[in-house]
Amino acid sequence: MPRSVTADTSGSFLTLTFEDGQESRFHAIWLRDNALDPDTRAPGNGQRLITIGDIPVDIRISTALVENDALTVTFAPEGKTVTFPDFWLKSHAYDIEKETGFGRMAPGVETWSSSQPAPTFDWNNVQTDPEIKRDWLDAIARFGFAKLVNGPVAESAVIDCASMFGFVRETNYGKYFEVRTEVNPTNLAFTGLGLQAHTDNPYRDPVPSLQILYCLENSAEGGDSIVVDGFRAAERLREENPEGFALLAGYPARFEYKGSDGVHLRSRRPMIELSPDGEMIGMRFNNRSSAPFVDVPFEKMEAYYTAYRRLGELIDDPDMGVSFKLEPGESFIVDNTRVMHARLGYSGSGSRWLQGCYADKDGLLSTLNVLNARSEG
Amino acid sequence: MPRSVTADTSGSFLTLTFEDGQESRFHAIWLRDNALDPDTRAPGNGQRLITIGDIPVDIRISTALVENDALTVTFAPEGKTVTFPDFWLKSHAYDIEKETGFGRMAPGVETWSSSQPAPTFDWNNVQTDPEIKRDWLDAIARFGFAKLVNGPVAESAVIDCASMFGFVRETNYGKYFEVRTEVNPTNLAFTGLGLQAHTDNPYRDPVPSLQILYCLENSAEGGDSIVVDGFRAAERLREENPEGFALLAGYPARFEYKGSDGVHLRSRRPMIELSPDGEMIGMRFNNRSSAPFVDVPFEKMEAYYTAYRRLGELIDDPDMGVSFKLEPGESFIVDNTRVMHARLGYSGSGSRWLQGCYADKDGLLSTLNVLNARSEG
Repeated sequence: MPRSVTADTSGSFLTLTFEDGQESRFHAIWLRDNALDPDTRAPGNGQRLITIGDIPVDIRISTALVENDALTVTFAPEGKTVTFPDFWLKSHAYDIEKETGFGRMAPGVETWSSSQPAPTFDWNNVQTDPEIKRDWLDAIARFGFAKLVNGPVAESAVIDCASMFGFVRETNYGKYFEVRTEVNPTNLAFTGLGLQAHTDNPYRDPVPSLQILYCLENSAEGGDSIVVDGFRAAERLREENPEGFALLAGYPARFEYKGSDGVHLRSRRPMIELSPDGEMIGMRFNNRSSAPFVDVPFEKMEAYYTAYRRLGELIDDPDMGVSFKLEPGESFIVDNTRVMHARLGYSGSGSRWLQGCYADKDGLLSTLNVLNARSEG
Repeated sequence: MPRSVTADTSGSFLTLTFEDGQESRFHAIWLRDNALDPDTRAPGNGQRLITIGDIPVDIRISTALVENDALTVTFAPEGKTVTFPDFWLKSHAYDIEKETGFGRMAPGVETWSSSQPAPTFDWNNVQTDPEIKRDWLDAIARFGFAKLVNGPVAESAVIDCASMFGFVRETNYGKYFEVRTEVNPTNLAFTGLGLQAHTDNPYRDPVPSLQILYCLENSAEGGDSIVVDGFRAAERLREENPEGFALLAGYPARFEYKGSDGVHLRSRRPMIELSPDGEMIGMRFNNRSSAPFVDVPFEKMEAYYTAYRRLGELIDDPDMGVSFKLEPGESFIVDNTRVMHARLGYSGSGSRWLQGCYADKDGLLSTLNVLNARSEG
């Protein structure tokens, strides 16, 4: 239980001392807004029933006391009394030392390079064992990619894969799309050419945050898949050349695609995307669909290109990539806001046929949160 | 045609003087990367065939000349010669005075308040007349919302609406969802309560960038729809309180939803979202699903809340909202990254039944780009 609490004489905040000695201040306005009582939060669905305007401007703490592993606060002028469990306050404390590093990784993200074994899971196990399913989704959240093996060699199995955790993002390429050699390709992906490691569809806003590639045939020479951690590449760039990193994060690039009739997609987004407080949240890198960069000032354009070139070298660096050749019935998922995928060129006899689809991380992370809660509960 | 060109003695850039006297510098690396020849760009789909690493580090301009409304550049050490049309260079010039205002609107965005007539289009006309369809999509791009009238009173017409320009974003709420009074609502939207103006699903990342609400019945007392331009509200906040604006743009808020079994969505995104160079790109505002804000430092929390409170007041200001009561067969689309929607409470005899669905702006803007090109061509 909290050891003690003292309210500031102004009533604008209180200071709570937890059992372990940690001291944390909480504001009256913050506590009132986040009150957990059934008049503030709907009991069934947990949604807040009040708006910020419902809280008096002169809200303040009139009394605060700790007992029974909880803090009880009475607010003036409302005269409303609310109780907060100790563990809830501890897990939501904001009066703490925060990480502020420019380009830092979010909690739970682990960057990797070529020595990273591909996290690999069995198609049937992830469907029958919630713990294995949890580990599979956790790997995608943590590393940004995972393989599935022993799946059916069946058309549209790629859709079934997305359905295990979330929802397909349909686009002009369809609910899913064929990745194989076409005679008049609308996209270079539909040729036998090698493709530099890239994120998909950076010209789309919002970008699809997950991609699944599912193998149905792969007897051609070559065609190996390679994945590269874009966050690691960005980390390396930041260490070598912080100014260059700041340029790629500080100015939007442009991306564009008009390969098909009736489609003209454009975006204005940076190659390295940070939250406003500096956490790494996304990468966009695609030589095929980069449009002319016109948002970088003339004086900074050469330095921007130097950083872009170096980022490309880091992405191409053999020390960075994890490669594998998919067998029929095997697939992989990438976090398309982080992990780049590449393909070796293929040709000769034999064939290569993959199906791909897009999905989004909201559904995946929601399913993971639910499985984590069950596993902990 | 360009009047003249001079290459810098270093060969690292050239200076082009256009017919109208405008001078613009272009770097060798930028010109080479954006070369328009068929070895650099695939003729059919326009995708770039080279990577940044294919361009020599010591790329420079060896000769540059203007003739026939075009610039012809030869690059050393490649010895490659490329021609750029005058109009292309003019439209992609980056050596220009750029708008840098913090929180500025993107080109083509017009903010509005309550005197704005609701842009209204006819269900059949947008399907039969490409010019009217263009105007409809342009209104959504420009103002962030538009109404459609005279549509069918038919279930799932909301899906047909999305199909006119793009693709539905399926979520845990389904391909589309029912908005009417439920006995055990998983979301307060499914009650008769009034709802403060809000953006939908801020707890989802990526957030659905469009929402369509389609009316099938509306004979209840109340239930009027209100839309508010979040960008205008943010503009007003910035004018009154630039520091408060910077706080809401500078620190992530948190949003959360776990109203249904098997769903636990969370996001960490700011209420006011800017591109890294300061252009306004998104708003998230939702009292029901705001989670405790834990990323704002203690010292800034009260000022953050003051700005949040003021933003809420601006959003609630009757001078801001455009209201209408949907009739059966009428619908409206909002840009869910910009325009908030609210609902008056409803009750009494009669019924209110809307269907809603989410979609994304990429498809809408792509369709608009294509229609604009046809209309101009």
